[in-house]
Amino acid sequence: MKNNEVLPFVRLAEQFEKLPGIGKKSAQRMAYHILNQPREKVEEFAKCLIEAKQKIVYCDVCKNITDKPVCTVCGDEGRDHSTILVVESPRDVTAFERTREYNGLYHVLHGLISPMDGVGPESLYIKELIARMADGQVKEVIMATNPTVEGEATAMYISRLLKPLGVTVTRLAYGIPVGGHLEYTDDVTLYRALEGRSVL
Amino acid sequence: MKNNEVLPFVRLAEQFEKLPGIGKKSAQRMAYHILNQPREKVEEFAKCLIEAKQKIVYCDVCKNITDKPVCTVCGDEGRDHSTILVVESPRDVTAFERTREYNGLYHVLHGLISPMDGVGPESLYIKELIARMADGQVKEVIMATNPTVEGEATAMYISRLLKPLGVTVTRLAYGIPVGGHLEYTDDVTLYRALEGRSVL
Repeated sequence: MKNNEVLPFVRLAEQFEKLPGIGKKSAQRMAYHILNQPREKVEEFAKCLIEAKQKIVYCDVCKNITDKPVCTVCGDEGRDHSTILVVESPRDVTAFERTREYNGLYHVLHGLISPMDGVGPESLYIKELIARMADGQVKEVIMATNPTVEGEATAMYISRLLKPLGVTVTRLAYGIPVGGHLEYTDDVTLYRALEGRSVL
Repeated sequence: MKNNEVLPFVRLAEQFEKLPGIGKKSAQRMAYHILNQPREKVEEFAKCLIEAKQKIVYCDVCKNITDKPVCTVCGDEGRDHSTILVVESPRDVTAFERTREYNGLYHVLHGLISPMDGVGPESLYIKELIARMADGQVKEVIMATNPTVEGEATAMYISRLLKPLGVTVTRLAYGIPVGGHLEYTDDVTLYRALEGRSVL
């Protein structure tokens, strides 16, 4: 088996290898999987790739994924336009929508500040968030980034930019997860839960 | 974010989820990765899928992957056509070719017998291997399936079919790997290495 004899196969494996979290061996296994699929299935896969890239865009306002210039959440007059919840990715929007309890708007950063990975504030949708404060309609911005080092740093960075604009910046509560066990909760979470206690 | 608003995205994630070893979360991460790629890159990925499926076929003789009806190994008159090395997948052919020591032909089964996964002998290229014995040219068949339960069972099954045809059926040697340490070698391998000892 000369390499140029199976060049289309090698090229396909290389494409899979570019996907996040996929190494050389997994990529090869995926390429073999594709060879074993009927032609229609492979053509459908290729069509899905093209269509997703063609039709899915970022909402002009909140940068969430949508197939319209402005997404259904931002376009919904029934929602509270004075509150913006800031998240890392569209997945987080789905998570909050599932709760059916949040009625404000969103802003998707598409990443977190992470100097180690070469991601600075300029590669995120931060200035677009600041621009949304211009008309004075927004009263509160809720930082809902993940409770990791990068998530915290990003929330701090953004809150420093927003505070001078007279907007209230809040953060999700830390505490014990509902249904969790105290004995299995780590020290930091337990301390934060104690610190954030409320009157019954 | 309504689901039909991002249907092309959901469809793409579903395609990734069908790949071996990929769960719902990894599939979503991959789909986001695609959205963040420039359009040309995504189109190239789609083209690679189609081309690999269109151009790569199984060799008529040995069932290895190739872009010709008969692969370069089977078509090479300089190689020893009296010996066939039987492997599970095209990856194993690449591994043996890398040694530059084997000069015979190959036969790729494209799987191993595994009743647990619903893979019987009829779903592998076993009858095609038997058919290659018809002209009496083949003297030796070397079983080179992986040293796992399925690999062993498949080797045993095939050797029972081949022996009545007057072909010598051999198996790769078990033993300590070159560069390995005796103290880290498992009991079964050590026992097999002892059993298969040779005169110095």
